[in-house]
Order: sequence, then structure tokens, then C-alpha cells
Amino acid sequence: MKHPASVILTLPSWLNELLAGKEILLPSPEKRMRWVIGLSRRNVEERSGGPFAAAVFERESGRLLGAGVNRVEPLNLSPAHAEVVAIAFAQKAAKNYDLSRVGAGGELVASSQPCLMCLGAVLWSGITRLTYGAAAADVEGVLGFDEGPLPRDWQRELNRRGITVKGELLRAEAVAVLELYKQLAGTVYNSRSSL
Amino acid sequence: MKHPASVILTLPSWLNELLAGKEILLPSPEKRMRWVIGLSRRNVEERSGGPFAAAVFERESGRLLGAGVNRVEPLNLSPAHAEVVAIAFAQKAAKNYDLSRVGAGGELVASSQPCLMCLGAVLWSGITRLTYGAAAADVEGVLGFDEGPLPRDWQRELNRRGITVKGELLRAEAVAVLELYKQLAGTVYNSRSSL
Repeated sequence: MKHPASVILTLPSWLNELLAGKEILLPSPEKRMRWVIGLSRRNVEERSGGPFAAAVFERESGRLLGAGVNRVEPLNLSPAHAEVVAIAFAQKAAKNYDLSRVGAGGELVASSQPCLMCLGAVLWSGITRLTYGAAAADVEGVLGFDEGPLPRDWQRELNRRGITVKGELLRAEAVAVLELYKQLAGTVYNSRSSL
Repeated sequence: MKHPASVILTLPSWLNELLAGKEILLPSPEKRMRWVIGLSRRNVEERSGGPFAAAVFERESGRLLGAGVNRVEPLNLSPAHAEVVAIAFAQKAAKNYDLSRVGAGGELVASSQPCLMCLGAVLWSGITRLTYGAAAADVEGVLGFDEGPLPRDWQRELNRRGITVKGELLRAEAVAVLELYKQLAGTVYNSRSSL
């Protein structure tokens, strides 16, 4: 087997088109979350990945710094969760691996509560605020995904590290997308289902 | 700010050259670990990223499926830890986001104990064995990195999910590379040092 020279993370073409050549500015938390949940719904409808989306905004202005959707299946990359994708695109755009140094700091808005991997990715990203829609219990309840052994006091652990957390914003709208995915997708991937 | 069309994960040129056109087969756990620690040392000497390396091997044969080193600073990507890079390259080579379905399953060998993000990445990758060199306490003690709020019983949590863990193999050799990095690098990046 040949070792590849690179791994390329791409967005679905519909998302590239949506982002092309315009500045996106969403001042209120609800507007940011509604936009992100819209991406998660579109990702399901277009069958371009799992039912998750995320975006990094400049905290104060609401200017979009980077957007992502779940790309695990289309790209064959298990780390390509929406949060990791959004962080990667925001950092590439900013040419900085530390989003705390970009503008007045970055907020990650995620359609669902981050899994263990994405929680860790937030810690390293320089993000200073995390806002999410559906709870981990929704993701596990509706889809049967295993979010990993999240520390019980994970919000306090983020707070201790200078990251504020706002959970379950527009939760019902976010959960509706998980349910749509379950209806449409038939099979739900899970790396351990084959064991 | 223009939203990029893609994010490209690359290896250092010295590692591409090392991997080019040959099959790497390392039957024993010690041989795999020594090879991986060698990559971490080379990454420091070449100043091509942080002092960490990882590789995915076919569990039984020891055939290399994918290799990675820390690429955070050169690529401006905080998720580009060695483990995530190695998993991504192995999955791309295998054209499968589930490494449990590749050969007799995949083992991740990491020069240091995975941080919270990489622990989560292991859970989603289909890896069925994790072997590491330096302990998280070494990484935190020598370099002052924050490995995140690792669950106290994280090994049991992996076991419960069908992943076996072997820790602190050739630990002293792995720690020596962390110390070399500290000596050479002068500054150690940390996303929260600026807060």
C-alpha cells in the first residue's frame, strides 16, 4: 500500500458555493446557531456527510471565520467531525493555530455537543467560547453514537481553561436534524458496530 | 477573509522520502515503538513540528499503514497532532474510515500518551490496540503542555470499547526526545499561554 503524500480536507460543493465571495456576519447567538443548524440539515439533505455542522465566529462581531460539516464518510476520515473541520478551516484562513489571537477571540458554534475528540480539539484551538445545540444525550439517544467517556464536569474543565460554554441553544431544531438523518440514512456508521 | 476551499495535511519532506516506495514491516512491539520514537526525534531535529510521532500498523503483521508527526506549527493547524495525522494517512491509504476492517485490525503506536483529543480520535478510528511511550505526566512535566481532563479510568474506558492499551514502552527513550525539544525549541507553544 502506497503511503499518500497528503490528506486533503474538503467541504461539500454546496457549502463552498454558499461561502464563496461573501462575508457572513451574524451578530446574535441565535442567528449563528440557526445558520449552523441549517448547514447540518443541508448536509443531511445533500447526503454529503453526517448530521453535524459547526462554525467559528469572531466572538464580538459575529464575522464567520470558518465553517465545517461532518465529512467522515465522504472523505473516509474518522477525525473529520464538523468541529475539527470548522477549526481547521478557520485556522487556515487566519494563518494561525491559535484562534484566541484572531480578532477578539473565536467562538465555536456546534449543532451538537462535542464528542470527546472535539472537546479536546476545542482545548487546543484557542477558542474562548463554545455554544452548542443538541445535547450528547440527544446524539446518543437518537442515533446511538458513542460520544466517548466525557468527564462529568467537562464544562467546568473548559471554564478553568478560559472557555465559556452555552449549551442547548435551539436544541429542538438541532435534534430535528438528527431525526431527519435517522429517517433518511438507514444505516448509521459506527466504527465499533462491526466488532 | 476568504474561506479556503481545502485544508491540506502534509508530512515533512524527510518523512515522505523515508516512506517512499517501500513497505515497512516491524514485527515486534519494541521495533515499532523504536521506529516511532525515531520519527519524533527526527521531527525535532528537522524543526518540522512538535516532539511527537505516531504510526498505525497492521496488528499481526506489523505492516505500516500510516505514519504521522506533530504538524501544528508548520501547518497552523491545532488538530494536527501526530496521532490524528497518522490515523488520517492510514485511513486515506486504506480508503476506509474504520481501521478495524483493515487486515487483522490496526494498532496505533504513539511516542507519548494521547491527549484528550487524540484519545477521542482513537475511539472513532477503529484502532483496536494503543501502545504509547512517554506518559502524560512526562509531557506535562517536561514541556508544560496541558493534556486536557483525561478521565481517570481512560484505559478501562478504551478496554470497554474493545481497545487494548499498553503504556510506557521504551518510556525513557521517548522522554529523551521531549527533553531534546525543550532544549532546542526555546519557546513551547501553548494556545492558552497568551490569555
